[in-house]
Amino acid sequence: MANKMIYLFDEGKAEWKDILGGKGANLAEMTRIGLPVPPGFTITTDACNEYYMNGEVVSEELKSQIRDALKKLEKKTGKMLGDTQRPLLISVRSGAAYSMPGMMDTILNLGMNDDTLAGLAALTGDERLAYDCYRRFIQMYANVVMGIDWYHFETILEKRMKDQDVKEENQLHTSDWKVIVSQYKELIVKLTKQHFPSNPIEQLEEAIKAVFRSWNNQRAKIYRKIHNIPHDLGTAVNIQMMVFGNRGEDSGTGVAFSRNPSTGEREIFGEFLLDAQGEDVVAGIRTPQSISILGEKMPHAFREFCDMSHLLETHYRDMQDIEFTIERGTLYLLQTRNGKRTAQAAVKIAVDLVQEGIISKEEALLRIQPDQLNKMLHRSIDQNLKKNVIGKGLPASPGAASGKIIFDADRAEQFSSLGEKVLLIRPETTPEDIHGILASQGIITSRGGMTSHAAVVARGLGKACICGCEEMKIDLKKKTMELKGITFNEGDFLSMDGGSGEIMMGEVKLKEPELSQEFLLLLQWADGVRKMGVRANADTPKDAVKARELGAEGIGLCRTEHMFLDAERVPIVREMILADTREDRLVALQRLLPYQEDDFMEIFKAMEGLPVTIRLLDPPLHEFLPDLEDLLVEVTKLQGAPDCDKRERYEKEQLLRKVRRLKEHNPMLGLRGCRLGILYPEIYDMQIEAIMGAVKKLEKMGRAIYPEIMIPLVGHDTELEVIKKRVLHIAAEYEVQIPVGTMIEVPRAALTADQIAKEANFFSFGTNDLTQTTLGFSRDDAETKFMHGYLEQKIIQENPFVTLDVDGVGKLIKMAVALGKSSNPQLKIGICGEHGGDKKSILFCSGAEIDYLSCSPYRIPLARLAAAQAQLEEPK
Amino acid sequence: MANKMIYLFDEGKAEWKDILGGKGANLAEMTRIGLPVPPGFTITTDACNEYYMNGEVVSEELKSQIRDALKKLEKKTGKMLGDTQRPLLISVRSGAAYSMPGMMDTILNLGMNDDTLAGLAALTGDERLAYDCYRRFIQMYANVVMGIDWYHFETILEKRMKDQDVKEENQLHTSDWKVIVSQYKELIVKLTKQHFPSNPIEQLEEAIKAVFRSWNNQRAKIYRKIHNIPHDLGTAVNIQMMVFGNRGEDSGTGVAFSRNPSTGEREIFGEFLLDAQGEDVVAGIRTPQSISILGEKMPHAFREFCDMSHLLETHYRDMQDIEFTIERGTLYLLQTRNGKRTAQAAVKIAVDLVQEGIISKEEALLRIQPDQLNKMLHRSIDQNLKKNVIGKGLPASPGAASGKIIFDADRAEQFSSLGEKVLLIRPETTPEDIHGILASQGIITSRGGMTSHAAVVARGLGKACICGCEEMKIDLKKKTMELKGITFNEGDFLSMDGGSGEIMMGEVKLKEPELSQEFLLLLQWADGVRKMGVRANADTPKDAVKARELGAEGIGLCRTEHMFLDAERVPIVREMILADTREDRLVALQRLLPYQEDDFMEIFKAMEGLPVTIRLLDPPLHEFLPDLEDLLVEVTKLQGAPDCDKRERYEKEQLLRKVRRLKEHNPMLGLRGCRLGILYPEIYDMQIEAIMGAVKKLEKMGRAIYPEIMIPLVGHDTELEVIKKRVLHIAAEYEVQIPVGTMIEVPRAALTADQIAKEANFFSFGTNDLTQTTLGFSRDDAETKFMHGYLEQKIIQENPFVTLDVDGVGKLIKMAVALGKSSNPQLKIGICGEHGGDKKSILFCSGAEIDYLSCSPYRIPLARLAAAQAQLEEPK
Repeated sequence: MANKMIYLFDEGKAEWKDILGGKGANLAEMTRIGLPVPPGFTITTDACNEYYMNGEVVSEELKSQIRDALKKLEKKTGKMLGDTQRPLLISVRSGAAYSMPGMMDTILNLGMNDDTLAGLAALTGDERLAYDCYRRFIQMYANVVMGIDWYHFETILEKRMKDQDVKEENQLHTSDWKVIVSQYKELIVKLTKQHFPSNPIEQLEEAIKAVFRSWNNQRAKIYRKIHNIPHDLGTAVNIQMMVFGNRGEDSGTGVAFSRNPSTGEREIFGEFLLDAQGEDVVAGIRTPQSISILGEKMPHAFREFCDMSHLLETHYRDMQDIEFTIERGTLYLLQTRNGKRTAQAAVKIAVDLVQEGIISKEEALLRIQPDQLNKMLHRSIDQNLKKNVIGKGLPASPGAASGKIIFDADRAEQFSSLGEKVLLIRPETTPEDIHGILASQGIITSRGGMTSHAAVVARGLGKACICGCEEMKIDLKKKTMELKGITFNEGDFLSMDGGSGEIMMGEVKLKEPELSQEFLLLLQWADGVRKMGVRANADTPKDAVKARELGAEGIGLCRTEHMFLDAERVPIVREMILADTREDRLVALQRLLPYQEDDFMEIFKAMEGLPVTIRLLDPPLHEFLPDLEDLLVEVTKLQGAPDCDKRERYEKEQLLRKVRRLKEHNPMLGLRGCRLGILYPEIYDMQIEAIMGAVKKLEKMGRAIYPEIMIPLVGHDTELEVIKKRVLHIAAEYEVQIPVGTMIEVPRAALTADQIAKEANFFSFGTNDLTQTTLGFSRDDAETKFMHGYLEQKIIQENPFVTLDVDGVGKLIKMAVALGKSSNPQLKIGICGEHGGDKKSILFCSGAEIDYLSCSPYRIPLARLAAAQAQLEEPK
Repeated sequence: MANKMIYLFDEGKAEWKDILGGKGANLAEMTRIGLPVPPGFTITTDACNEYYMNGEVVSEELKSQIRDALKKLEKKTGKMLGDTQRPLLISVRSGAAYSMPGMMDTILNLGMNDDTLAGLAALTGDERLAYDCYRRFIQMYANVVMGIDWYHFETILEKRMKDQDVKEENQLHTSDWKVIVSQYKELIVKLTKQHFPSNPIEQLEEAIKAVFRSWNNQRAKIYRKIHNIPHDLGTAVNIQMMVFGNRGEDSGTGVAFSRNPSTGEREIFGEFLLDAQGEDVVAGIRTPQSISILGEKMPHAFREFCDMSHLLETHYRDMQDIEFTIERGTLYLLQTRNGKRTAQAAVKIAVDLVQEGIISKEEALLRIQPDQLNKMLHRSIDQNLKKNVIGKGLPASPGAASGKIIFDADRAEQFSSLGEKVLLIRPETTPEDIHGILASQGIITSRGGMTSHAAVVARGLGKACICGCEEMKIDLKKKTMELKGITFNEGDFLSMDGGSGEIMMGEVKLKEPELSQEFLLLLQWADGVRKMGVRANADTPKDAVKARELGAEGIGLCRTEHMFLDAERVPIVREMILADTREDRLVALQRLLPYQEDDFMEIFKAMEGLPVTIRLLDPPLHEFLPDLEDLLVEVTKLQGAPDCDKRERYEKEQLLRKVRRLKEHNPMLGLRGCRLGILYPEIYDMQIEAIMGAVKKLEKMGRAIYPEIMIPLVGHDTELEVIKKRVLHIAAEYEVQIPVGTMIEVPRAALTADQIAKEANFFSFGTNDLTQTTLGFSRDDAETKFMHGYLEQKIIQENPFVTLDVDGVGKLIKMAVALGKSSNPQLKIGICGEHGGDKKSILFCSGAEIDYLSCSPYRIPLARLAAAQAQLEEPK
């Protein structure tokens, strides 16, 4: 028997997403549980794959199954495709296993032709409706199947509206629509040298092929790439009886969420358009009204919708995004799916669902993408500031942003790549604008609503977004925008608050986020589950306080070099570096000592009761000196000026000489880290003394301090041995007990971890440097010079400085853990590169027996959640 | 029973070097086989170690064993220590298991005091002899045991000689010696506030302690460090009856080799001093005469010596270095050991011994230090040049050298570290001068002979050396030297030929070495034994020819970037790099193509019949551009000059901008290697086409060409996959079959070698870069900034760029070999870093299943021999 490639809605169920696609499976599920879904059937993803395997040909078998299914549908509806008396109109929609909103094609009102037009008019008693359906069908079919640009049709429509002097489409008369339809058909003949197809079976087969093809259109491919969706899944096709939201004042169409997708509040949230078809909402062509209008105009239908929404949410155990149409007061559900939501809403909904008894805590933890937590830490506009609000739109995606305004996605990307902060301003966005949205701090559109493309994408990406700010007048050619009578040019600064919808003049100071109760509760649950510790990379008392507030269980990496960069200290640091003798260096170091001691005191206080791992000086010394090129220019100028200050010239020349002597070919692999500590032991001695002094003072004050000293860039056990001896010697003088450990950040350290572990109380993988050395990628050079090309050509799948390179660096880490623990079973192992705040990398760490993560303060919530997820996902 | 810590000479044998030291074991062996060795005994190295373990105290047990042994010695000689009638005089000499010539202390004539002085005079009938022994003893004992500087005594002696108006010591009368001895004793009282010890047992115990202590003096420690001798072996002490070479015209002392240590010729070669004690020869205080003088003066003794020399050589199966003394016509042997020799002599002697049936070929192969072969490739003075010879000394160590003359070891080291070639000029050298000798191209001394310190050390290090050039007048204070009436200052250029002893004016052109028959024969034997292949790193046809001449079996690394640096091509290369568009770049590349094709043609021809591995472009492109700093200075100057050429300024500014854009933070880890080939495929395409073009042309000429293409800096299998596809695509167009392989030079390549091997026909370990990335050592920065300190502080034992870091890099190599062969059993594996020419590294490679080595042409003989040794030393 041939493969079954079609399922009627009442044959499928929610679990069959793989073959029915998400939309098809949910339509089947809703049908199964008795909800009012217009009847239809789904062509499977297998059929789509078969189509591609056959060289983009629809098999006879599939055609025959389509005709069978159509017959059953006709029987069920009592209408017939192409019938002049009771014509069946259908929609043909894509629907893949993973939601790809707006990426693939849809055709509505299929089955219209000159003959069925009259039938539909007679059947509905509404000639205008019939024409409206016909012109929509022609336009969509011509666009999707025949590839004719949308704007050709819009031009005809707009001209007619202008000629007739009307502002809204629904003010046009039937006679106008007749003219428009015939002009549409002429246009098609003119552009394609063929007539618009009138045979509904031909229409259907072509429409199905077009949907299949849309699986591989450019924007769908890009979307899949961004979201890591495999390219060989294929799409299903849903064929469904049309219902008409465009049948007058008792009809309409809407999209609504079972909870607020922006805040997570438990309330129906959505939009509704009276007398319209669904496309009008989604495409953002008309700006819809709040769903509350439905409650006012059709209270019965609204109540019914609320009940169904609740039923669906309980059934699917998640917040739902529901498309519906009301035809003459009757409610139909056209689609339901788990709704996209802001990070804030995601957390609130997950926590609320636990508290409502619908899901478990573990499920709640697994539902939140750790990256989303970062978005909740987005800044907002400081409420205490006087804001110069110049416009307001729909609050489509929360978060505040400031930047230069740019009117086109390509230029937004260019400006952003130059390091500029950018706000993208568009009448509306389309999937072709994704790169511009990615490059921007925020997006503002003059058209479209909360479910328009811009809004959906921005929420997904955690970008601030304001939609439908209709008072904003954009001139794309001139690259200007007018608001409140003021003209803004490309590059002018504006600010926005995606949470309130407000647009403000100039740059505005942004405020740090506050954390919701749900957020804190979720993280508490995560802490109960995870086994890996989470510490912070924090170099200042301020960082330490913030880290602790966000749940850090100590500091895993305190970089002492940042303390050297304080304006007050830089001159002393330079004196120290440029000292001609050890004695002079000691004098400068003695002056730095009290500063360092103060730094450590404050950090220890902020982390009282928790471990603080201090890394001794790491960067090459020339980082603290003036730039060689600047000096060279200065000296050349002084040498060329006959009347220059001779003394100044001499001093600059001396400085240049010294800076040049310290210059290195590859500073990343040069005199830094413990190499400094070995060649200039007095520098580390000063730091160690400052630590001990701080500890001693705090201990005398009765504070519980847990310092640890970490040695950077160790590659040989002898390095650690020598420096550890110094540490313990000084610690003994202060009568302080202190664990000493090492960074593992060059491959040799990992390869000889058994030798090094004998000298170490702990390891901390410095995965940034370990990635640089293992791959031979200088981060600065790679990211500006070749990383982009490598990602584009798929030489590498991900930026290895963001997501840990498991095959290379990961292999070294696993070796080092095994070797280290083999010679020192007490060894504690952490990771303190930026990977400690990346979800995928954290999952790897969990499998690699890492004891704790350390990451920047704002990544701590993410790390806590990801560590919990790693625990939950671990094979039992 | 207590440990036996003393062995009489007739109790020991040659094999007991560990406990008796080399000298003690050989004295015992010579005694055992009946040669005329003055009787004595050896205190073991165990006793020395016990001395150190006891906190530098001689145990009662050892003292008691010393007294017992002394009694036996007194019985054997019929003399007694301290006896006024028949006083026994003894020597106390150090002797470790490894020869450390001149590094430790010796005391002669021990047992002298005012009482035995008379006895010795009576016994020998030679009062002058007795005084000579006495003053020598006082001077040596005071120096070694009491720490009084030698020059105090020399001053007294010289003053007396001047007062008495004599030129030679032996012209002084007994009365003079009496005065001198009493002045010596007064000096000691004055300097140490104590009397010179007269009790011979006290003298003996103190002397033994002094020899023990000398194991740890500074120069001995440095010597052990240089020669990798463990520091915990300790020294033995040899106590031996004195015989007197200073008993007049029928007495004397000498040092001779059983073969010529400079050339290897089979002839007695050495020096003899009439009427002298051994120290006079070794210390270079008097310049000795050729051994042939002995034949003239004492033909019987000379014949006897020749016979014994031959006997010893056959017994020890190697060329011997023999110390002897003739007392009143009777020959005594005082020491024998395997003689140090030049590289050339080592090879000739080893090959001759095989041909004389004394040793096997395998033994001969194992006897040559591979490094020595390099020395044989030293340059010489071109014989066709007119030489301006201004002086002549003893030809102490062969090889020619040119350089600036420097009169002090510290300054020699300084000049050398600035990149200057240096000749070290000294009256004589001492162990304190080793760093200066190391830093010099050659050494010239005005005093001392072929066995003086300078000569022995220079031969060991393969440095050119001329000794005893007495006509040279050195003024150390003024830093000048006079020869043939010309005064030379520090920094003047001279040249020297250590093989002829000639010193020449100015810089002289040096000639490449020619290879002896023995050298070639030995390498033939090596080729018969070794399993690892030996190829060359060669970038030019000239290199290729030289490499083949030295035995290369192909080219393992042909670096194409060197071809880009030709003066004619650099402008085109720059054009290519600075091109604004791909089209402009292609134009420049098309102009480079014929050059590259020619290069490859010539190299292929030179290596006809053998494989040639061509590495595609590797270095970062900015290496071909003008220096950024130079440009910056130029531009700054132009900008400051109001009347500058505006066009020139603009062009320079443009160039600066582009050079700056290409600048990288860490070029070693930046856009280079295959990353270039991936981002700019047209560059590699040009190179591949040039290779294919050359191959095709030569194949048409009937030549047998075996090219291979090697991709640099691969870290991901995808990189190799993409570029290999290009290579095979172009190769297919030319109908050429070509293996494609990759360098393994970043850790990730080694870690993922199983993935990479699927795409590779061969691997070649680029151990230079692999060392840089694995250790995180930028070679340029490490060697100038911290390597020295690391070696000094023993953080690392050896420079990892010279000798492979087995624990780190070696571990990676072993992993990569195993992983690579696991997924591709046909994989060929080579090594082409500089380690391919280092003996220890080659031994490692042999154990790591490396198929072939590739090294610079002049290292090929070394590699051939080392590969054979690796094979011979491999555990069966």
